[in-house]
Amino acid sequence: MQDRDYMQLAIDMARSALGQTSPNPAVGAVVVKNGQVTGLGAHLRAGEPHAEVHALKMAGEKANGGVLYVTLEPCSHYGKTPPCADLVMKSGIRKVFVASTDPNPLVCGKGIARLKEAGIEVQTGLLEEEANKINEVFFHHIKTGLPFVTLKTAMTFDGKISTASGESKWITGSEARADVQQLRHRHDAIMVGIGTVIQDNPSLTARIPGGGKNPIRIILDSKLLIPLTSRLLNDKEASVWVIAGRAHDREKASDLRGLGAEVIEMEGSRPAVIPLLKELSRRGITSLFVEGGAEVHGSFLKEQAFQQIIAYMAPKLFGGRDARTAFGGEGISRMADAAMVEFTDISKVGSDIRITAKPARR
Amino acid sequence: MQDRDYMQLAIDMARSALGQTSPNPAVGAVVVKNGQVTGLGAHLRAGEPHAEVHALKMAGEKANGGVLYVTLEPCSHYGKTPPCADLVMKSGIRKVFVASTDPNPLVCGKGIARLKEAGIEVQTGLLEEEANKINEVFFHHIKTGLPFVTLKTAMTFDGKISTASGESKWITGSEARADVQQLRHRHDAIMVGIGTVIQDNPSLTARIPGGGKNPIRIILDSKLLIPLTSRLLNDKEASVWVIAGRAHDREKASDLRGLGAEVIEMEGSRPAVIPLLKELSRRGITSLFVEGGAEVHGSFLKEQAFQQIIAYMAPKLFGGRDARTAFGGEGISRMADAAMVEFTDISKVGSDIRITAKPARR
Repeated sequence: MQDRDYMQLAIDMARSALGQTSPNPAVGAVVVKNGQVTGLGAHLRAGEPHAEVHALKMAGEKANGGVLYVTLEPCSHYGKTPPCADLVMKSGIRKVFVASTDPNPLVCGKGIARLKEAGIEVQTGLLEEEANKINEVFFHHIKTGLPFVTLKTAMTFDGKISTASGESKWITGSEARADVQQLRHRHDAIMVGIGTVIQDNPSLTARIPGGGKNPIRIILDSKLLIPLTSRLLNDKEASVWVIAGRAHDREKASDLRGLGAEVIEMEGSRPAVIPLLKELSRRGITSLFVEGGAEVHGSFLKEQAFQQIIAYMAPKLFGGRDARTAFGGEGISRMADAAMVEFTDISKVGSDIRITAKPARR
Repeated sequence: MQDRDYMQLAIDMARSALGQTSPNPAVGAVVVKNGQVTGLGAHLRAGEPHAEVHALKMAGEKANGGVLYVTLEPCSHYGKTPPCADLVMKSGIRKVFVASTDPNPLVCGKGIARLKEAGIEVQTGLLEEEANKINEVFFHHIKTGLPFVTLKTAMTFDGKISTASGESKWITGSEARADVQQLRHRHDAIMVGIGTVIQDNPSLTARIPGGGKNPIRIILDSKLLIPLTSRLLNDKEASVWVIAGRAHDREKASDLRGLGAEVIEMEGSRPAVIPLLKELSRRGITSLFVEGGAEVHGSFLKEQAFQQIIAYMAPKLFGGRDARTAFGGEGISRMADAAMVEFTDISKVGSDIRITAKPARR
């Protein structure tokens, strides 16, 4: 095993906890002494010990004179737990490999500086790109103060999301739909427009064999048209937040609260995307999974308010000049105004294709 | 080198001549004696010698007692050239490996039977799938009497082919556009609707460095609206066939003929797809590359009259509930009526994705 292998192991441990550490990042740590692994750890849940704490505890005396591989710069501030940098210093670790440096303004660079001051050798950059990718959601949230937004869609090979008469179940196969459940599990919240709720009456839970974490369910419903009998208002599977516009029906809001839903009132007849994202962030949402429909996606596209698009494409064609497509709204008129992305992953999922894209780097 | 390697070489030679042998299939042949290659050949152009003829001629005396690897069953009938089966028999070849058996009713199975009767050992099936794929166009044409139809489109990640205001140049990057030129070169004919001619004034030639074979250019133009000044009517780069409906303008037809175009009159105000394909086949078209627009693709989709769809998808989004999509027409209303395909190839071409699909096997 070489440095790279130990860091890879730390990354693999971090990745295994993805989706359960929010609002904290996923972090893994490995302690090695004399070519032997003496400690392993990962941060598993907000409020619980950090990765370094677990790993150093397991190593005990065998941390002294050892090497620590950690996927994210050790913290230097008192949060819910004492600073990890101090713990590393006390442990007798002689060298630390850090993959990602921490973008959190409370920490950034200070953890490493602290270790160096204490005479510990620190090397950064090992598998940095891979480690950054694991925490892209956390980093985005820390840097911008907004949730990391993933727009998800399922369409035919010819770009349609429903037939001319509006049929839309199911476009993709069972493997793709199971894949979506995994993605829901990894997000703090899921968002759909009121049209989707009225048409499909979805539960929007993460149905994963053996359980899964249900995201908060957010409905864009400026006029509070949501039926009180909607499945998601009654199933108690996860919180429901209804985003209302300024001129909503007060009585309906009260009924919704009676059913346990949170009604969040925003400015404007149709809430603007960026202020809404700010409000969601303020309420602790770091990652948002937007499942459409077309008009909701159109709004996010117009503001270029997305960090990722995941499109499932089914091996079928509907045709139809008026059949609905995944991204609606007004659209652009000049090609130069198109939202530019880059394809970062293309995979077969069952008989469907999953295409992932991120905003193009400028 | 093993049997498989020799057949692979024969297939590679056949593939190198793809697009230049129409209406004949592409065929490769290798002669081996005592572990040494003694003859190589491929059919290069209709009217010229078949692959076996080239290979056996090169082998000369060294064919005697040798083994022949040929990608397609040797012919047993007198066409433009004498039957290859007879030549193989005379050459003294002791064993023949055949990849594809010939679906041509004039030949099918008879070439092999003839060889066997002459006491030559024949083994079929070696790399058959790969060999069949090379001649899928030829086989389809022989079996159905219709051209092999490829529908090609270039769309955004959100399935649009133009912006809300109609801008469409260019959706894909230069690598994808160069790839399309190669595909044009490999087809007997290219087809577009009159809308595309009026809007884009395209030349529809195969612009390949070092030259290329221009397909016949076919315009669906039931009312003969094509401007006499259109680039493709005046550039003399390749033949132009204009498909007119019953009630077309006779004077305009005469003007078009004056410019060297062929005007083909079909039944109905808008010619039906299948009768049109039959007419094109009668005129020697074995492969047709349909480049749209949306309504033309919609017609072919409605009749499920395609053997392949090639879609280039660009890393950009237009949005727009009314922006045009690649497959128009009425479309289907019941999901059960969707055209089912299977994805057979997914590749990056520059920064775009090329997705190839074929009708799903039933």
